[in-house]
Amino acid sequence: MADESKKWVLMVTAQTPTNIAVIKYWGKRDETLILPVNDSISVTLDPDHLCTTTTVAVGPSFQKDRMWLNGKEISLSGSRFQNCLREIRCRAGEVEDEEKGVKIGKKDWENLYVHIASYNNFPTAAGLASSAAGFACLVFALAKLMNLKEDQGQLSAIARQGSGSACRSLYGGFVKWIMGKDESGSDSIAVQLADEEHWNDLVIIIAVVSSRQKETSSTSGMRESVETSLLLQHRAKEVVPKRILQMEEAIKKLDFPSFAQLACADSNQFHAVCLDTSPPIFYMNDTSHRIISYVEKWNRSEGTPQVAYTFDAGPNAVMIARNRNVAAALLGKLLYYFPPQEGTDLNSYVLGDKSILKDVGIEGLNDVESLAPPPEVKDNIPSQKYKGDVSYFICTKPGKGPVLLSDKNQALLDPETGLPK
Amino acid sequence: MADESKKWVLMVTAQTPTNIAVIKYWGKRDETLILPVNDSISVTLDPDHLCTTTTVAVGPSFQKDRMWLNGKEISLSGSRFQNCLREIRCRAGEVEDEEKGVKIGKKDWENLYVHIASYNNFPTAAGLASSAAGFACLVFALAKLMNLKEDQGQLSAIARQGSGSACRSLYGGFVKWIMGKDESGSDSIAVQLADEEHWNDLVIIIAVVSSRQKETSSTSGMRESVETSLLLQHRAKEVVPKRILQMEEAIKKLDFPSFAQLACADSNQFHAVCLDTSPPIFYMNDTSHRIISYVEKWNRSEGTPQVAYTFDAGPNAVMIARNRNVAAALLGKLLYYFPPQEGTDLNSYVLGDKSILKDVGIEGLNDVESLAPPPEVKDNIPSQKYKGDVSYFICTKPGKGPVLLSDKNQALLDPETGLPK
Repeated sequence: MADESKKWVLMVTAQTPTNIAVIKYWGKRDETLILPVNDSISVTLDPDHLCTTTTVAVGPSFQKDRMWLNGKEISLSGSRFQNCLREIRCRAGEVEDEEKGVKIGKKDWENLYVHIASYNNFPTAAGLASSAAGFACLVFALAKLMNLKEDQGQLSAIARQGSGSACRSLYGGFVKWIMGKDESGSDSIAVQLADEEHWNDLVIIIAVVSSRQKETSSTSGMRESVETSLLLQHRAKEVVPKRILQMEEAIKKLDFPSFAQLACADSNQFHAVCLDTSPPIFYMNDTSHRIISYVEKWNRSEGTPQVAYTFDAGPNAVMIARNRNVAAALLGKLLYYFPPQEGTDLNSYVLGDKSILKDVGIEGLNDVESLAPPPEVKDNIPSQKYKGDVSYFICTKPGKGPVLLSDKNQALLDPETGLPK
Repeated sequence: MADESKKWVLMVTAQTPTNIAVIKYWGKRDETLILPVNDSISVTLDPDHLCTTTTVAVGPSFQKDRMWLNGKEISLSGSRFQNCLREIRCRAGEVEDEEKGVKIGKKDWENLYVHIASYNNFPTAAGLASSAAGFACLVFALAKLMNLKEDQGQLSAIARQGSGSACRSLYGGFVKWIMGKDESGSDSIAVQLADEEHWNDLVIIIAVVSSRQKETSSTSGMRESVETSLLLQHRAKEVVPKRILQMEEAIKKLDFPSFAQLACADSNQFHAVCLDTSPPIFYMNDTSHRIISYVEKWNRSEGTPQVAYTFDAGPNAVMIARNRNVAAALLGKLLYYFPPQEGTDLNSYVLGDKSILKDVGIEGLNDVESLAPPPEVKDNIPSQKYKGDVSYFICTKPGKGPVLLSDKNQALLDPETGLPK
């Protein structure tokens, strides 16, 4: 190692997507290794709208491992970070950078510290799987920096030890996390079921729901469920295995009605298990319930499902529309029920792929105000509006897996100092 | 039968309590006979605060069976009414009224019509088990009028065919509805576990929660759960039988911690099954969730449960306090979080046993406004108030079973005409 010069810094920058489970992961059989009680299946979300960018750097002048998230230094002392760092370091390979005259041997990595800078292009605390994208990106970027020979599946087993659902963010498209059997967790890995081009009709709309409640973290929530719910094991052993097979089949055949029925039922069953926990865990609120009711009513009125919904450990609704026309109609209905609060710019109320707004014929707030009530509710109930109950919407679609960013300008660390730019 | 004179009317008036299940009934194995998929256990509520009064009359001048509920005539054509009337008529005995010179033979009942007038001393549509008290009272009063020889258990099997939970309203105190095995339903009856004096420390506070949602009826809700929930059968077969034994033991031993733990867990599991139904059924709303959170937090802060909560097919919270001191503290906390809306009289906001208000030191609305925040939340969250989210509170306790009212003034039908007074 060229340690006579303390000036070099090697860096890698990567971008990794979030994912949303359509067959849910809820409950660990091993808390440390993060081994789940059942398989799960997810859809990777387009990183253009929801992703983590991470730059990792190594240099002889670094005094300790350090990390910055969205510009703010955070501690790496947690066991989840430590487990990921340890697992990657012990697999590190030889790295040579001829231009910089740097050669790092396998053993050298034990004496070198890393700097990590991570940035989410979406609000971190909004319950949008930031830890999944974050740990996936950390592991993916470090693996490139340290020249690991492991394949994506083996990397997913490392990311899993940072955050369970992170393993599913190592692939684009449709991903299965196989629970595995081995006590070491080596076979608890993610595999890609189909890439993002396989079912490119699908359009995803996320309603970020306003909430006054402090939510139970998913880590402690699932621990409490495993310890107290009398329904969780039945779900894990009897219900999910069948659903996994059915969901794989639905994805393979682009069978939207089955996909939607399974995704909705499984989301609801996950929340049922939360409610069966002692003390009970409520992630969905009245707004979440209303969104479910609207979607269910619409699906019934159409005779076949148009939209699937799924909710993670929070009140946000992730809605998957069977195609772009349906997504446009869905967005129109959602904006009718949940118009933005006074003073909110439409541009900051509908994020992501804003072009769907044009399909609905909406160019400004006055178009939102003049939206007609959805026909499927007009007769029954006086259609009530819930201004302010949704913070904003994100329009997106299934997306690709992790990528390396070769453009130096996208790096989050300074190439000379290895500190945040 | 003295049918030369068409003028006589024979009448009976009875009063029957509502009940609240602490181990829930959810799901029928026979829709017509109303046979449940599991046993259930309930607490009978004091009829002074929540009861149905029913007068039944028979006379040769009546042209058909008729019924009035809260003064308004309603149809008796529904199968549930017809089943109850048929089951009672075919068991009718001989009746003689020497004063009026009336003698009715067993066979005569087939040719005589009845008039029924029923009145609830609480709002019918508020989700407070009005159909349970109603059918129990109808069956109890008709059985007396027609001189049935059946015991209370056999009567409960008839009331069950009107509304499942009605069978539990035929006894005071603590009641078990045994699901039975027989296809005819003859062994699906209620039995008393303990009378209302057995555990007379308990105090019950009901929060009638404001709701904008139209709720799924429990009849169609439980049908949909049986058809679609993959958790319901597991609950019925594996979870409830153990809980029934534990709850019987807790009641027998006046073991409040076990009673509370079981009641809360079973209420939550019932709502979990509702959520696992397709489409999902939401009976609890954000206010219900808040009440649960407050009670859970308080119970934890005290180290041992002070209050049990349970929710039926609606957002109303039924809270069972271990004694009167706890009930007073609970009412204070509830009034702090959920003060009445401006212009609401305290007298119409706290109903039932209003004397508990004095124990809290509340004599007027200004005392409600100056309530101190409950200590268990003070440190964590800015304690928010939810004015208007509760419609009113009812303070009550476990109560007695059906009684006959001999005072003629309490009859709801005119003794001469057999029509509503």
